[in-house]
Order: sequence, then C-alpha cells, then structure tokens
Amino acid sequence: MIRADLLLTHIGELATLDRGPVPRCGPAMSELGLQTEAAVAVDGGRIVWIGPTRKARSAVRLRRGGRTHDLEGRLVVPGFVDAHTHLLFAGDRHREIGRKLRGESYRSIAASGGGIFSTVRATRKASSAQLLRDARGRLARLRRHGTTTVEIKTGYALEPRGELRLLRLLRQLQATEPMTIVPTYLGAHAVPREARGRATAYVDEIVRHSLPTIASAHLARFCDVFCEPGFFSVPAARRILRAAQQLGLGTKIHADEFVASGGGRLAAEIGAVSAEHLLQTPAADRQRLAKAGVVAVLLPLTPFATLVDRPVPGREFVRAGVAVALGTDLSPNSYVESMPLVIAHAVHSARLTPEEALTASTVNAAHALRLADGSGRITVGGPADLAVFDLHHAAEIAGRIGVDPVEVYRQGKFVFTSELRQ
Amino acid sequence: MIRADLLLTHIGELATLDRGPVPRCGPAMSELGLQTEAAVAVDGGRIVWIGPTRKARSAVRLRRGGRTHDLEGRLVVPGFVDAHTHLLFAGDRHREIGRKLRGESYRSIAASGGGIFSTVRATRKASSAQLLRDARGRLARLRRHGTTTVEIKTGYALEPRGELRLLRLLRQLQATEPMTIVPTYLGAHAVPREARGRATAYVDEIVRHSLPTIASAHLARFCDVFCEPGFFSVPAARRILRAAQQLGLGTKIHADEFVASGGGRLAAEIGAVSAEHLLQTPAADRQRLAKAGVVAVLLPLTPFATLVDRPVPGREFVRAGVAVALGTDLSPNSYVESMPLVIAHAVHSARLTPEEALTASTVNAAHALRLADGSGRITVGGPADLAVFDLHHAAEIAGRIGVDPVEVYRQGKFVFTSELRQ
Repeated sequence: MIRADLLLTHIGELATLDRGPVPRCGPAMSELGLQTEAAVAVDGGRIVWIGPTRKARSAVRLRRGGRTHDLEGRLVVPGFVDAHTHLLFAGDRHREIGRKLRGESYRSIAASGGGIFSTVRATRKASSAQLLRDARGRLARLRRHGTTTVEIKTGYALEPRGELRLLRLLRQLQATEPMTIVPTYLGAHAVPREARGRATAYVDEIVRHSLPTIASAHLARFCDVFCEPGFFSVPAARRILRAAQQLGLGTKIHADEFVASGGGRLAAEIGAVSAEHLLQTPAADRQRLAKAGVVAVLLPLTPFATLVDRPVPGREFVRAGVAVALGTDLSPNSYVESMPLVIAHAVHSARLTPEEALTASTVNAAHALRLADGSGRITVGGPADLAVFDLHHAAEIAGRIGVDPVEVYRQGKFVFTSELRQ
Repeated sequence: MIRADLLLTHIGELATLDRGPVPRCGPAMSELGLQTEAAVAVDGGRIVWIGPTRKARSAVRLRRGGRTHDLEGRLVVPGFVDAHTHLLFAGDRHREIGRKLRGESYRSIAASGGGIFSTVRATRKASSAQLLRDARGRLARLRRHGTTTVEIKTGYALEPRGELRLLRLLRQLQATEPMTIVPTYLGAHAVPREARGRATAYVDEIVRHSLPTIASAHLARFCDVFCEPGFFSVPAARRILRAAQQLGLGTKIHADEFVASGGGRLAAEIGAVSAEHLLQTPAADRQRLAKAGVVAVLLPLTPFATLVDRPVPGREFVRAGVAVALGTDLSPNSYVESMPLVIAHAVHSARLTPEEALTASTVNAAHALRLADGSGRITVGGPADLAVFDLHHAAEIAGRIGVDPVEVYRQGKFVFTSELRQ
C-alpha cells in the first residue's frame, strides 16, 4: 500500500503530458498522455501514485489527517509553465497605446526615451518593498490562471547594482511564493541611456563583473540577451552568452523579434537552451534550431499586444521539428497574465493544434527552463502542481478563450480555488 | 441629507460614462466622464449620490445597518453590457477546431451538418434543467469578468416549439439571475435541416405564428435574423424584421459577416436598432448606418475564434460616425466570456482607442439594447451595477489583456469579489 496525504479521485480526463521523449516537436507534441476516470495520490507535495479511480482504494492508504477530494469528472492538467516573463518592474506604460495605435514601433518609442526606458526609470526609483508587492500581485494572478512555474527575467535596472538588487528580490520571491521561480539575468536588455555610445564598455562590465558575481552567488540560472539592431549585436550577444556558458549558466536569446537579426542562428551556433520571440526567423535558421535542439519559446500575444500585424509562426516551427514552448511575455509592453489565453492565441493566431499548445505550455516549457524534476508533467515523483478545469477534454482549453481553472494546486496544496465550481 | 445603505469611498478614478449624448460615435466616444477621489452612494440598489469623497460625509447619511466600503484608490467603471451572446445552448464544438485549422469555413462546416447544426441537435435533446445549469455557469463567469447586463439570443432550437422553450428558459433566468438579461428571438439563425429546401415555409411560420406568439407573451424584446448567403436572404430578413417591428419588437441583424450580404444596408433601410458582426460592410453602407442611427455591434473576438484572418474594422466604423457597441458573441463557435478581453481585442485588433472600447462596452452597448434606465453608466437614479479594478486608470483595462475586476456589484450587492484584492 502506498501512503498518501491527498487523494484526488474521479478525474474525468487526466492529461499527464508524460509520454514521449522530451523535448517534443512535431507529432509527438500531440500526445497528451490521457487517462480517463483517473485518480492521483500525493504525499508531501509529490505525486506518489496515478491510476484508475476504481483501483485507488486498494492501492493507496491515506495517512491520518489526509483527505480525499472528488473531482466529479473534471479535467486535470499539469500546472502551466510560463517560460518567458519580465514581471519584476515598476510603473506602467498604458499611455503608450496611443503611440502604438498611430503606428509607432517599440524601437522608435524606446529611442525617444519611452518604452523600456520609462520602465527602467520607474524600476530604479521604486523601493524594494514596492517591487516585491507588485510582483507578488502578478504571481498571485498567474497562479489563479493555472501557472505554477514561471521564469522571470531581470532587465529593468540595467546598471549593475540595480540588476543585482532585482536578482536578490527574485531570490526573496523564490523563498516565499508558492511556485517554482526560475531567475534569468537580462542585464543586456538594452544599453542604458547613461551608457549611450559606450555599448562595448557596457558589455565589458557584464562579462567581467556582473556575470561572475551572479554566477558565484547562484543568483540566476540563465543569462539572456536582447539581440536586435539598436540593442545588442550578434557579436556582443555571442560574447556575453559564451561568458555565461563558461560560468555554468544556461543561455537564452531574445532573437529575431523585429528583424531577422541572426539571433536565432546564434542560438543554434552556441547551443543555447532557448531562442525566444522568433517572429522573423528565416526558414534556414529554423532548421538550424531544430538540429541544435534549441527550444523555441514563442510568445503568441506579443505581436497582438504591441500592435504588430504579424502572427507568431508557430506552425512553421513545429513543421521544422523545433521543440516549441510558450510564455506570456508578461511585461509593461505585453501585459498578459493568463497561460490559458496564451494557449488560445497559440492556436487561433500561431496555428498550433490545441494538443501542441498544451504540450508547449507544460512539458516543453519546463524543458526550456531545464527543469527535470517532473514540472510540467503529471508523473510519479514529480511535484503535485495541478490545474483543474470545469471541462471535459484538455483540447477545450484552447477553444474556450481565456478559460480559467477552478482549482490550482502547488505541491499538493491549494493556491487557488474558485467559487465558480459547478 | 441623502439616505443610503451603501457608500463607496476613495474611488481613485470613477469612469461614469455619463457625459455626452447617447448613442456615442466619433470623438464623443472618448469622453469617459472621469472623476477622481470620488464616492458613490447607493440606496435600494440605485445610485443616489455621486461626488468627491471629502464631501460624502456631509452629503450622505447611512441608514441603520448600512455600510461604508473604502475602495482604497481603485478604479470603478459601469458594469459591462455584453450586447451580443448566444449563451443558451448544449453540447460543445471543440473538435471542430481541427477543421477550422485546416481552413474549413463556418458555412462549409454547417453545410456538412456540423457547426450550428450539431449545437441544434444537442440543444433540442438537452433537458431544460441542463440548459439552465449550463447557462447559469456561463452567466456567473460573465459576472466574474465584470458584466452585469447581457443580451441573449435564442436560435439553437430553430423549430417553433423549441424556440419558445428557449425563450421561457430566458424568462426563468431573468427572474433568478442577479443581472439584467435582454432576450432576443433568433428563430432565423439558420433554416433547420428538416426544412431544407423549404426556407420560405420556414419564414412563413416565423412571421405568421412564432412572432405573434412571442410578441403577445412579451417573451423577447428583440428579433434578430442571420442574413447571409445560405442562411436568410435580404428579402427574407426584411420580411421577418418588418413583421417584428409591426408587433412592437426591436430589430437586430446578423449582417455582412462572411460577405457583403446587404444586411447592413437593410438595417439602415428599416431603421433596425443594431446591425451586428459587420466584418465585410462596404464603406457606403457604413455611411448609411451612421445616417440611420443604427448601432454597430462589433464582435472583435469572432474572427479570431473562427480563424478568419480579417480583423473587425472598428476604426472605420468610428470614423464613419457610427455608434459602436461590443459583445462577446459567446457561443459554441466563439467561446468568449470576458468583456475585458473583448475590450483588449477591440483596441489591439479592431483599433479602437481604449476610451472608445470602454464606451462601446458600457453606455453604447446599453443603447444597442435600448436600455434607458442608466445601465452602462454610473448616474444618479441608475442601477448600482459596478466593476471595481485594481488599476489606476480606465484606459488600462485595454492594455492589461484580459484583466479581471476584483469586485463586481449588481444593484449595490456583491456578485463577485476576488481574494486577490491587494
């Protein structure tokens, strides 16, 4: 008999996402590992048994004080993994929507000192308490939408001390928030205004001082670079990411968002863990990414949020055999907190199938964060991070645009429960 | 002294939407009637006083048992008015997403007996208890997203008795749900499969029997027709809508969704209250709509949900001087329950400004439903239907894609309150 402190029974459909090799691309992305009339037993926050409800009573013994929860035929999927956010910031940029509606680009707004630089000013000025409070509100809402694992990038301080402050705040969030937080250092988000014309010196500083400090204090798991004209060139990005690799950090690249910058190709060249955005990546570079095993982190709502009339070419990446993951891109420029909404846009705009979109927002996103602990899957030994929906089939998550779970578990404990369970 | 049983104080920004003439079009749509540091007093579910918080104590006296609620600087807007739904149905069509992804159209799926006809089969078969239960779940979720007034169309029974059953179910929902429900008869949603080739007889039946029965029992406030090739022609729609007008019903038209069907022009010709969808309306017909005072009910998520690569031309309608209203189009074909998400798509896809989108989802939507009781506005004498957001400015609703209110009031009573208030 397996001992458990929580037994979830009568799961109408359980999408384990626990079949096939990781990372997933092409047809394998459609295998959701479905079980019907299933049960899941949890002990100490980890999954200890999965099987049919009718067998649960004979296989699992509840500990004293443990409880059984009847899910009455509902759908259970892994808690979502949001593979790309910038959610640690102050200020807001809602007034820039007028400029975007008049056709101004991200680059042109930034060049005038707005956009990212307005967020940098507000973030530098904000107290740590304020930054934590705002980030905690965002994380609570992410959980409410079903997300239990999230990557968070720095990059709104830019100057070295400020970036270290942000990384230390992420460590505080890791220690206190009921979710898995993966910190990424993005000091190379933009060349700060005070360093204009001295980009090389800024890169020097990152390579010689910031990265070694961050790596030795284990403040980040990944290093990311914004590789676009006007931000960081391919050689600068290569230099930063190579240095990060030598220090044992994983690497990510903001690539090919505004133009085919060569960032995707660089990701393949250096064996980055992921390349992200990829709106403009040429077909040949998609092939390179597939061959190099780089995960494509696609952000289907970002062109929408920034009024760019070009959908994320999700289908093309799947066809090329690239493993696709998804993220909200939560930031002042793309204020999206709901992974179910990302899934809906991944299907209706980026043209993934519902099954591919679910794979991309769970097991593949966990792979983009190099989490090998069972995050993004429902598997024995893995964390009991689960989202429960009032739906019959996993594929319906994409069709019910922006649907929210009615219960969310993190390590077997409720982090959200809705009054709307029917 | 004004007596009140509820006093809301310290509203950081109050968007009353109570300025300018109704309906609103063009620049007037940007006037939100903003007040800062405001208070609202409510008595018996109606608003009795609006003014600055600092004056509330001297102007308003709380009744015994009444309470004051400090909104701590939050944003308050009118409860949203969803001007177009088909939320009374059974069954689901999530499996059709694969056909849509392969490029099949609504018409072609319907022609093969799927689409609307699969929903008709499921709805006819469903018990009234089941239909009510599903509709109540949807209405609860609408409220959670801030909607307090909703139009609901019939049209998934088609045969006369079944349509009457749906209208009676709507009456039950009106009597029991804490929101304003406006029933629309859409018997002419499609020619039922059993009447194929006998469309004229089906229209005869609607005109001679169904409409008089519905009008005399006051079962619907509006009559709507799906005017597209393969569904109902312009002459058939004219005949039905003229008959409805003679019986005292307001008229609406599903027009110009798939092709420029002439439905928009018909709406202008007969003086319909609204024309809805309007994806393909020619510029000359937009002018006709403006001149005739017909409200354009635009559904920015419908092309997205149905994988049609053509955004709703919202900007063009505003420019033409047409009063624009918004709706979710909640149906098995466009499963959207969130008006804040509709507002986000109205801006980012249909290119309204945030202020226009808010106007279109409140005061203009109430006008599209001919509600003159103050619904869709925050006005003395009107219902205390309010949505409270953890935001500073009304314009942020559009930018925080799919943001949810933290409290929703219907006639001064909580219908939703979130645990996430910061």
